[in-house]
Amino acid sequence: MRIDCLQYCQWSPKIFQQWADGGVDAVHVTIAYHENFRETVINIEKWNRWFEDYSDRIVQAFSAEDIIAAKASGRTAVIYGLQNPSPIEDDIGLVEVLHRLGVRFMQLTYNNQSLLATGCYEDDDTGLTRMGKEVVREMNRVGLVVDMSHSAEASTLAAIAFSDRPIVISHANPAFWHAAKRNKSDSVLKALAETGGMLGFSLYPHHLKDGSACTLDSFCEMIARTADLMGVDQIGFGTDLCQDQPDSVVEWMRVGRWTKTIDYGEGSASQAGFPPMPDWFRDNRDWDNVAKGLRQVGFSDQDTKKICGENWLRFYKNAFIAA
Amino acid sequence: MRIDCLQYCQWSPKIFQQWADGGVDAVHVTIAYHENFRETVINIEKWNRWFEDYSDRIVQAFSAEDIIAAKASGRTAVIYGLQNPSPIEDDIGLVEVLHRLGVRFMQLTYNNQSLLATGCYEDDDTGLTRMGKEVVREMNRVGLVVDMSHSAEASTLAAIAFSDRPIVISHANPAFWHAAKRNKSDSVLKALAETGGMLGFSLYPHHLKDGSACTLDSFCEMIARTADLMGVDQIGFGTDLCQDQPDSVVEWMRVGRWTKTIDYGEGSASQAGFPPMPDWFRDNRDWDNVAKGLRQVGFSDQDTKKICGENWLRFYKNAFIAA
Repeated sequence: MRIDCLQYCQWSPKIFQQWADGGVDAVHVTIAYHENFRETVINIEKWNRWFEDYSDRIVQAFSAEDIIAAKASGRTAVIYGLQNPSPIEDDIGLVEVLHRLGVRFMQLTYNNQSLLATGCYEDDDTGLTRMGKEVVREMNRVGLVVDMSHSAEASTLAAIAFSDRPIVISHANPAFWHAAKRNKSDSVLKALAETGGMLGFSLYPHHLKDGSACTLDSFCEMIARTADLMGVDQIGFGTDLCQDQPDSVVEWMRVGRWTKTIDYGEGSASQAGFPPMPDWFRDNRDWDNVAKGLRQVGFSDQDTKKICGENWLRFYKNAFIAA
Repeated sequence: MRIDCLQYCQWSPKIFQQWADGGVDAVHVTIAYHENFRETVINIEKWNRWFEDYSDRIVQAFSAEDIIAAKASGRTAVIYGLQNPSPIEDDIGLVEVLHRLGVRFMQLTYNNQSLLATGCYEDDDTGLTRMGKEVVREMNRVGLVVDMSHSAEASTLAAIAFSDRPIVISHANPAFWHAAKRNKSDSVLKALAETGGMLGFSLYPHHLKDGSACTLDSFCEMIARTADLMGVDQIGFGTDLCQDQPDSVVEWMRVGRWTKTIDYGEGSASQAGFPPMPDWFRDNRDWDNVAKGLRQVGFSDQDTKKICGENWLRFYKNAFIAA
């Protein structure tokens, strides 16, 4: 079982085929960055067309059981997620509606302050807002997983503490390895693991030590150290693969409609676009490289399988259903 | 098994209790008249709150199996329907989205011309539009039932002929008994039955011979004649019960946002509001009267059960699932 708990590609039959070629059984796909509810539904409609047109390759998953069935039918399961709470607007009732439509992850913030919590690029981190607490309760109730990948430290610790159910950081790496704003402190990772939460390792170059030049060995050594910190059952992948996207998309991710000026986020004026992927993980076809790298740094076959997907599947079994 | 295939009450715990008192196992509830998509979602959010707050009484049904399970748990199953295609706006992709949210019936028109077909109050009845044909195909694909209760004659015949799956007239009566604009011709009823479709008998006084003064015997004799015309397997109830609604609601039904002047629909300036119900069917607690009336005009126990709900359940089994 191979599961990638975060991708946002320019979806196409080519990529659906590469999922199959790389043996990827399930992918958590982002369906909204800054979209409101109606715009998110339009994105769902696009996916519905893909499910209809490429029904031999892909199928939507609402549950862990759907992922197992998809694998049995030789298809990749697609799980929806939101990188921002903008799709629920200011309306807590939309949590259940979006869950019914298949959304299984929602970040409480992208990089900025949201109605719910504080993003990792704000100066002041005030934790969960009043609405944030209500929405976490509602997400807990219906089985929509809290994702704090783009959130600030205190907000993340507050969400871990406040949520009755384990939460995730679907796509980030430990700050001890590469001290980027988006990577996470030891205290966050420990609190996450202690409450049954999961970390998905990112392969987005801005999250990697030495960026696009990061070596497979360095990446896998980092995973081994994180396993020591969090336990080998609490880790998986969330590659953040943004294959075939034009640079206008990374601008949309960073800028949305919240500013009229440009914000480079993790990039810079001289490196404004998507950075090139490491040569050992160009796209979904290179999953075998990662699995080999894990074994080379000493992970057993069983632990490699856990990290490559079985941990996520176990987590999904409990996380996607009503409390 | 008692099923009412159309109600639009001012929903409340009182009415949910009356469903139980009347032995009503499932109700097709209208969730939109003139609402757009976002407004319809707000109505779905209201139902979600009722399902949460009155979970001992009611539960949403997505399938016939859900209705059987609801009955087994002592609860009434609620099935969503739309009396107008306004919730899909001009966007065919919303058919599948609304089906996912539980919508199982959609009228192609209310009283006026829609983007899909012609309503029963228009002067010219042009049948299915280009989009109408596409939407019927899509409804057939996903398992959303075409309902022509408020549609004009040629449009209704066109929908029956064009749809690959049986359609319904969820709430109307035969014109041979009471020649109201909303009641249906013999040719419509025959074509409906021949294609496996269903008629739900209405108890809305404007659809009844002698209106609010209609007798139970006259009503049940009409059902017997309709059974002769359509077959006893193709009929059920869609009472159109609008209990506890203020008259502002019947104005909304008739006028929506399509005119700035008043339109009385089936009513008149002197009788603008909701008419009083017949004294033998005041509300859901009077279902036993109707069942007795059917037996008094000669229906067997078995046929009475069919008409009171088993026919609908059989129809739902096939109709609510993907083609």
